[in-house]
Amino acid sequence: MQYPSATIPPEQHIQIGALVFPNMDQIDLTGPFAVLSRLPNSSFQLIWKSTMPVRDHKGLRLLPDASLANAKPIDLLIVPGGPGQEDLMEDKQVLSFLTAQAGRAKCVFSVCTGALLCGAAGLLKGLEATTHWQSVQFLKYFGAVPKEQRVVIDRTFVSAAGLTAGMDGALKVAALLRGEAIAQAIQLDIQYAPEPPFDSGTPDRAPTEIVAKLKQTSEKLTAQRLATARRVAAKLGVRVDD
Amino acid sequence: MQYPSATIPPEQHIQIGALVFPNMDQIDLTGPFAVLSRLPNSSFQLIWKSTMPVRDHKGLRLLPDASLANAKPIDLLIVPGGPGQEDLMEDKQVLSFLTAQAGRAKCVFSVCTGALLCGAAGLLKGLEATTHWQSVQFLKYFGAVPKEQRVVIDRTFVSAAGLTAGMDGALKVAALLRGEAIAQAIQLDIQYAPEPPFDSGTPDRAPTEIVAKLKQTSEKLTAQRLATARRVAAKLGVRVDD
Repeated sequence: MQYPSATIPPEQHIQIGALVFPNMDQIDLTGPFAVLSRLPNSSFQLIWKSTMPVRDHKGLRLLPDASLANAKPIDLLIVPGGPGQEDLMEDKQVLSFLTAQAGRAKCVFSVCTGALLCGAAGLLKGLEATTHWQSVQFLKYFGAVPKEQRVVIDRTFVSAAGLTAGMDGALKVAALLRGEAIAQAIQLDIQYAPEPPFDSGTPDRAPTEIVAKLKQTSEKLTAQRLATARRVAAKLGVRVDD
Repeated sequence: MQYPSATIPPEQHIQIGALVFPNMDQIDLTGPFAVLSRLPNSSFQLIWKSTMPVRDHKGLRLLPDASLANAKPIDLLIVPGGPGQEDLMEDKQVLSFLTAQAGRAKCVFSVCTGALLCGAAGLLKGLEATTHWQSVQFLKYFGAVPKEQRVVIDRTFVSAAGLTAGMDGALKVAALLRGEAIAQAIQLDIQYAPEPPFDSGTPDRAPTEIVAKLKQTSEKLTAQRLATARRVAAKLGVRVDD
């Protein structure tokens, strides 16, 4: 897959399109929305199979603006994650939407396990990418080169780690599309000078017993994601020794 | 106003209620939602005058779960901000909802200019509080002691600075209500180990010309907020020398 250059002239409108879906994690979308809805000369559409409300993993309900079939052509494609991503890994309608829109987009931006969905759509082959810390080991099944970083940019594919990493990724995307001064103005507007009260945001810094407990809680989903990743790898013709 | 202690026993359910409203800034709510919807033994309701979709400042549409009249009694009351807060500063229905719910809540948590709304409801009298960097100067009109901090806790009133500060505030609220281990587990789950790509999140760190431009952009709203704050101060019986 060929990505065109990401730079977009200021006078050229940027159509942003984000996939939303049941059981997603809303902050994967709403974090980037806070940043990217502030890009000058842009508009933002939320897209799903229908325009009926979509309920996130924890119960927040969002209204899509357009259906997959009626979405405007997208310049910046955003793919969030969350447990519901797993249900779409072999969904032809969603995967062909992603492939088609990514093919014309100037930039594709995955957040959290949205990267796995992009992988299933064949968008990660040969690219460096990242995802939620509990899912990094699956990236190789989509032909990606896994990176344990907060944000990874390879050509015009930007991937952010778990959930809140979407804010950091979005600021990088903003700089990529409209320049650093715009990104800095947005950062000031949304007062993004984080001060996490605890140092527990990554598995190497969180208390060991908390890491273990969280892994245990998601054991079933993690096993399911592995089985799916293997099936997808076979379909994509990606060979993984494991 | 008397606040009871914030500690809630693990076996006791926590009813979280967040006000939502037209022209709010969605991240003031969705940031804290990502954290607090993960509290064990809790449920989260979005509340507005009706249950019709609410459109945020930048166009994201959220669905309220309950109306002001039908909301369940709230243990943790969340008040987000955004430009639409200004329209509610003299709205009797909203203000009396806030006063009534705050009177029974274990904890009240304002994000961004949600603090001004709490101020108008008389909840800030004699308390230290913070808000968005462009609005800190208004806090005194509500009898509050303004603090330029990311998060301020005074008794059981927690206030966070602009927009994204809601995440930091929410983690503190989580620790307050369910203990630090729970807050740390949530932080790991949402991979909150922020790495802002620029150092432009506060007016003292952002480039001077960007600060000036942003102030200019919000000149009209800032003037309007001042006029409103003065009217509210008179109503609350708060005397400000200015």
